[in-house]
Amino acid sequence: MLTIDGLQYSNWSREIFEQMHAGGVSAVHATLVYHENTRETLSRFGDWNRRFEEHSDLIMPVYEAADIERARESGRVGVFFGAQNCSPIEDDIDMIAVMRRLGLLIMQLTYNNQSLLATGCYESEDPGVTRFGRQAIEEMNRVGMIIDMSHSSERSTLDAIEVSSRPVIISHANPASFHPAKRNKSDTVLKAIAESGGLLGFSVYPFHLKDGPDCTLESFCNMVADTADLMGIDHIGIGTDLCQGQPQSVLDWMRNGRWSKQMDFGEGNKNNAGWPRPLSWFKDNRDFPTISEGLRQKGFSQEEIEKIMGRNWLQQLKIGTEPCT
Amino acid sequence: MLTIDGLQYSNWSREIFEQMHAGGVSAVHATLVYHENTRETLSRFGDWNRRFEEHSDLIMPVYEAADIERARESGRVGVFFGAQNCSPIEDDIDMIAVMRRLGLLIMQLTYNNQSLLATGCYESEDPGVTRFGRQAIEEMNRVGMIIDMSHSSERSTLDAIEVSSRPVIISHANPASFHPAKRNKSDTVLKAIAESGGLLGFSVYPFHLKDGPDCTLESFCNMVADTADLMGIDHIGIGTDLCQGQPQSVLDWMRNGRWSKQMDFGEGNKNNAGWPRPLSWFKDNRDFPTISEGLRQKGFSQEEIEKIMGRNWLQQLKIGTEPCT
Repeated sequence: MLTIDGLQYSNWSREIFEQMHAGGVSAVHATLVYHENTRETLSRFGDWNRRFEEHSDLIMPVYEAADIERARESGRVGVFFGAQNCSPIEDDIDMIAVMRRLGLLIMQLTYNNQSLLATGCYESEDPGVTRFGRQAIEEMNRVGMIIDMSHSSERSTLDAIEVSSRPVIISHANPASFHPAKRNKSDTVLKAIAESGGLLGFSVYPFHLKDGPDCTLESFCNMVADTADLMGIDHIGIGTDLCQGQPQSVLDWMRNGRWSKQMDFGEGNKNNAGWPRPLSWFKDNRDFPTISEGLRQKGFSQEEIEKIMGRNWLQQLKIGTEPCT
Repeated sequence: MLTIDGLQYSNWSREIFEQMHAGGVSAVHATLVYHENTRETLSRFGDWNRRFEEHSDLIMPVYEAADIERARESGRVGVFFGAQNCSPIEDDIDMIAVMRRLGLLIMQLTYNNQSLLATGCYESEDPGVTRFGRQAIEEMNRVGMIIDMSHSSERSTLDAIEVSSRPVIISHANPASFHPAKRNKSDTVLKAIAESGGLLGFSVYPFHLKDGPDCTLESFCNMVADTADLMGIDHIGIGTDLCQGQPQSVLDWMRNGRWSKQMDFGEGNKNNAGWPRPLSWFKDNRDFPTISEGLRQKGFSQEEIEKIMGRNWLQQLKIGTEPCT
């Protein structure tokens, strides 16, 4: 089975890469940066180049969809990169092509807050995609960088779908109808994502789940089935949002970047400021077969399971990242 | 005939790209930066991406030697990039792989002055390749970025050749025996370059020539013949150092960067501060056939002329830029 995880930001180590192999992971969308600027983003690429060199028997970089096949053939996990904010391009449209060349295949237009491109899902007002945002979407379409609206708000997401000539994705979130969190998405948004040809990656981050860390596999798989009915079987995948082994400081960076002098607790609160307790049935990369088995129990066919577990993600990368010529 | 010019830094325009076509240029080593730091270098890549988009019928980027063949097949001029100083990597060894991925195929370790890596040809003392320099050379060897010592001093150049496991080049200079300029190279250096498997690109920048702007084509071709005797026919090429249409401000930037509050006149002087008067027989890219004809008159065979005009450069790119796996 081709397994692709549509979002992780773990404290990368050889142990984690070995767990990916143990869990049958073929490729993973690794978050490269949250709020890093252009120069800082290059250093994150530098960190990954060192990992690719040191663990060349386990992982390899993915610059285009075909590299995922090459990774499988060579018995390695393919790693493709995304930014959770548009900070890598700063205010410079030329940085989109530069970052794409370096391997940034996916970029969120916002991370919770208002950005130069669009509005994040934590803002009270949502004026939609900005002037720069419209041109950035066009340029992302041109160079083959996938637009990810996981942390964006409703109107901005619908705007982005309208402006974009390529599919728009939500790499990691769940339907708000399943669990009403700011980060989860309305049926209106999910249908529009599917109509754009895009994809929703289901998150197993407890804040995105009904009953939080106590959400059962059965409940998760029911959500998958309901969403398949809503969006169609070709437009859903996995995007675990696994943040394995990260210290509190990383969570604080995600939530606060450099923008806040107060402590912003994001989806938590003052009395629940830390990482959530993980699910019993998904602790790390070795647990992907558990999800597959849950989907089988729910009644999905083998072909449907393969689409959800990886084939749909591969297809997104094929149609979303090939540069226009 | 495959014609490759081993260095230009012109005021790029459609007119110049058309002149390249008229002169039968297959590929050109374009200087991307002189003293730009990492972030600024990305903007220069951005400028070129715009040129590639706007003039996609005339030019295309070269990321590996095979792209030069692809450029020829598609009737375009291939552009490959080099930095005349190590400023794009700042103090960060990880930036070498990042810049290589972006298409920086060649980097000088120094530009006239002492750098973090080695000593430039204008310094009075030359302590040789630095601690960082040794590691940078190793990393450049690993990722396939060619080491160019055009603006470096004697000992540093010999050091670099000794440290490097790949050939070292001088993309644009002439033998000091032909014209004793600080930028021209001793026979010792030239022989060591050839022994490393590297190449000297002959400059037609008047400051590097005997009789300056009045140097004759015959005199130039005599120098080529003498150098072929010294280095071997496989280790010489062209590196015109053509800086067509550049304003005085660009010459000042080359010479002064951000390091000098006084005006440094480089190869000129206070009373001769500007661009030199060009040669009568080499004004722009349309004049490459004139050089070929001069070499023919001098008695070089067709095969030898093809090597000098481009084949040797292509071979350098083949052996110098393929990443180690």
